[in-house]
Amino acid sequence: MVKGPNHHVGLGVLGLGLAGRLVLESLHDNPLVTVVAGSDPREEARHKLTADYGARAYVSLSALCDDPEIDAVWVATPTALHRQHAEQVLSKGLAAVVEKPLAATVGDAQALVDLAARTETPLIAGGVRSLDPAFRHAREIIDSGRLGAVRAIQAHAVTDWMVRPREPAELAPERGGGLILNQAPHQIDTIRLLADGAPVRRVYARTGEWSPLRAGVGYYSAQLDFGDVSATLTYDGYGFWSAGELMPWASRERLQQTRAATGRYRKLLTADRGTDDRPHRDRLRLGTATPDSWPAGASGGHRRAEDWLPTDAGVVIVNCERGVLRQSARGLFVYDENGDLEEENVPPGDANTEAAAQLHAALVRGRPPRHDGQWGRDTLAAVVALASSGRTGHIVELDTPTHRAPAAEDTGEES
Amino acid sequence: MVKGPNHHVGLGVLGLGLAGRLVLESLHDNPLVTVVAGSDPREEARHKLTADYGARAYVSLSALCDDPEIDAVWVATPTALHRQHAEQVLSKGLAAVVEKPLAATVGDAQALVDLAARTETPLIAGGVRSLDPAFRHAREIIDSGRLGAVRAIQAHAVTDWMVRPREPAELAPERGGGLILNQAPHQIDTIRLLADGAPVRRVYARTGEWSPLRAGVGYYSAQLDFGDVSATLTYDGYGFWSAGELMPWASRERLQQTRAATGRYRKLLTADRGTDDRPHRDRLRLGTATPDSWPAGASGGHRRAEDWLPTDAGVVIVNCERGVLRQSARGLFVYDENGDLEEENVPPGDANTEAAAQLHAALVRGRPPRHDGQWGRDTLAAVVALASSGRTGHIVELDTPTHRAPAAEDTGEES
Repeated sequence: MVKGPNHHVGLGVLGLGLAGRLVLESLHDNPLVTVVAGSDPREEARHKLTADYGARAYVSLSALCDDPEIDAVWVATPTALHRQHAEQVLSKGLAAVVEKPLAATVGDAQALVDLAARTETPLIAGGVRSLDPAFRHAREIIDSGRLGAVRAIQAHAVTDWMVRPREPAELAPERGGGLILNQAPHQIDTIRLLADGAPVRRVYARTGEWSPLRAGVGYYSAQLDFGDVSATLTYDGYGFWSAGELMPWASRERLQQTRAATGRYRKLLTADRGTDDRPHRDRLRLGTATPDSWPAGASGGHRRAEDWLPTDAGVVIVNCERGVLRQSARGLFVYDENGDLEEENVPPGDANTEAAAQLHAALVRGRPPRHDGQWGRDTLAAVVALASSGRTGHIVELDTPTHRAPAAEDTGEES
Repeated sequence: MVKGPNHHVGLGVLGLGLAGRLVLESLHDNPLVTVVAGSDPREEARHKLTADYGARAYVSLSALCDDPEIDAVWVATPTALHRQHAEQVLSKGLAAVVEKPLAATVGDAQALVDLAARTETPLIAGGVRSLDPAFRHAREIIDSGRLGAVRAIQAHAVTDWMVRPREPAELAPERGGGLILNQAPHQIDTIRLLADGAPVRRVYARTGEWSPLRAGVGYYSAQLDFGDVSATLTYDGYGFWSAGELMPWASRERLQQTRAATGRYRKLLTADRGTDDRPHRDRLRLGTATPDSWPAGASGGHRRAEDWLPTDAGVVIVNCERGVLRQSARGLFVYDENGDLEEENVPPGDANTEAAAQLHAALVRGRPPRHDGQWGRDTLAAVVALASSGRTGHIVELDTPTHRAPAAEDTGEES
């Protein structure tokens, strides 16, 4: 499986919707991984892939897998199809990067983990905010010991997730949809990373749904316990405001524009109640997206050297014994016991670039990815526990998975 | 008990430490309530009371109660003494305002509630941030129905509570001290008010203590359930940063100065470990405080027409069905379903002024105070449940107290 040291990984992107489009944008000039092909049932998407990205376009996954330059496939299809598609990829001996959530159920995720082990093929759980460069840098600061051990973490997200254009399946938990399955992975994955990979032991959550426009949970709060570390999560997906308002560097004008756009879409949903919003959703997909399609930037981090604003993971605050870490416009704020505040810059980057680096390191140097299938499966188990606790009102105790010491170094970017 | 309509309530302040000093500052020009006397064992405090506030000074509570102009006593003594002192006051037929927490135990609080009922004497649970004018205005907006029902509330505090000058008793939960007993009342009382007085049904909390300088809980996170409303609280009292950093209007320079001052005191604690910090604590008390003594302003709200910054209750976010409310520099931000943001100004005021207004309305117009003894007792019960859940890791179910419809109007200020 291990390729030569100078091998450029050939990637196929399966599914050229929103997630696939963002992968293309993120990786178009990637030094380690090249998108050589893609697949989507929509003709416009295939056309755009070839015209704009010079990649070969296929209708079927099996044709994509047979492309001679393909080493790995990025599975960016609807969640309910993740297992089936990733199984096809892994069975052909190709590596797979799978968007979050890894699968629609923990059982499906476990099946992928087992298959990856059997075929000795890299499986990477991608698409999560924990792959943003700032969090990797946060881990480095934590590992340096200068702030002492991590003791409590908070993540507070305020987004318009419930008011974005959606297909019905995206909002249906039984088909891998819904706010919790799709957004809690960002927060839980990030918190797990910051808690140094310690297993989640117990989850308590409350959920709320109060929109007449969108059925289903649109708000949750949760408490996760990791033994020595505890974490508090909140997520408001109703879009009346955004967590960016808590960032002094955010342009008030731009925040206002975003709120107004959400308000307009909310009105449209009110008028259209009962229909799905597929036509609007199409504006997010490759081939039918327009230059002003959401989101304006790349898929995460602050790749375009814009100031960071909180998105899916929210405002993340890491409370350590002797200080506090949180995200800043260009990196991280580090508050120490002397009362000093230092802003540490983090080079621009994004989650997809980091996942690609882990993929490259796995294929070319045989280095196990931190965000492997087991990692994604464990995050999904905590996400499912959150949903379950929210439904029942009970604390969910999780089986303690084997603690895996995190890799000393994650990606192939330095060494 | 009811006085004539133009009666100016004569108030005695018992205990001229930090809380008592802030009461004097708040009420020095109050149109409804006049501080006519006070009591404290410290000579400097009594001298200052007479010299600066023109009030009579007594050594003992019984002498204070015998002052001919006294209608009510504000109990600002250490928490462990609240019950004993308030009982003396109520037994003499005088009204009592008691600082938070109402008492050191729920049993003590209940005894006060029962005594107030028996003597038909007003008992007001004061000293809590829920009395800040912004929250009263928030209730008016909620009651107007324009944002729909309240569904979830968040309160996130980041203060230096653990690193301020303390006497040993202030940090000892068994003597009414500690972060939870003293600071959770602010958050829980506020959330209860915003949840329209619905009873707290269940509490789940996690606590953290990680300072070698100060024993005891310095961090907590909790989930409160009120039936239809759920609330998430976090409180970080270690002072490495402050929630003011999340307010764009906060002066970065001033935030830095506050952090640096906390850092200096933290260093001093490191050097002095094992001793108590009584001399530093004295700098907060009447008679020994200096003009630059903490806190710089009045006891709450934004009485001096300064921009509001989060303190004990933290950043409070009220999620309603059709919008969101949170505090702004001069009042409240109201986010609505159209994507509009309106800042509604709230006239300057503070918690002590509001408690005084409730006291006046009770004594002069016989109007039952919203923040009465039962209210304070119920808040304390939820606070104690939080501490207990934090210790045991279990969900605490609370006996559902009788739901009392909140008074349509709280204070004597308008009518």
